[in-house]
Amino acid sequence: MNYIDVIGMLAGGLTTVSLVPQVLKIWRTRSANDISLGMFALFGLGVVLWLADGLLIDALPVIVANAVTLVLTLTIILMKWRFGG
Amino acid sequence: MNYIDVIGMLAGGLTTVSLVPQVLKIWRTRSANDISLGMFALFGLGVVLWLADGLLIDALPVIVANAVTLVLTLTIILMKWRFGG
Repeated sequence: MNYIDVIGMLAGGLTTVSLVPQVLKIWRTRSANDISLGMFALFGLGVVLWLADGLLIDALPVIVANAVTLVLTLTIILMKWRFGG
Repeated sequence: MNYIDVIGMLAGGLTTVSLVPQVLKIWRTRSANDISLGMFALFGLGVVLWLADGLLIDALPVIVANAVTLVLTLTIILMKWRFGG
C-alpha cells in the first residue's frame, strides 16, 4: 500500500466517522429541525452509488466505508423523520 | 469512460450537490442549532485529504468534486459559527 492509498483510507475513514457526532447530537437533543432532509437524501443516494462502485471494482475499503456511511445516513434520516421539523 | 466511471461520477456529483440544500436551509432559517460542528469539521478534514489524493493522482473529477465540497462545507461551518447554538 503506497502513501496515496493511505491518504485515501484516512479520507474515507474521516468522512465516514464524521456522521457519528451528528447522530449523537440529534439523539441527545431530540431535535433535528435545522437538518436538511434533502441533504441526507441526496447524500445517501450518492453513498449507495459509491457502494455499488466498490462492489463492482471489488474494493473492500470502499465497500466497508460506504456501507457504514449508509447506515449512519439512514439513521440521521430516520431521526429527522422522528424528531425534526 | 466505462460504466463504473459513470457511476463514480454520479456518486461524486450527488454527495457534492447534497450539501447545497443544507446551505440553503441554514441561510433561509438563520438557524443551525441542530447542526453538529464536529460532523462538518471531520467531514471537511476528510474532504481536504480526498482533494490531496485527487491532486496526487491527477484526477480532475476528484479534484473538482472535492474542491466544491470543501467550499460548501466551509460555508456550513461559517454559518454554524454565525447562526448556530
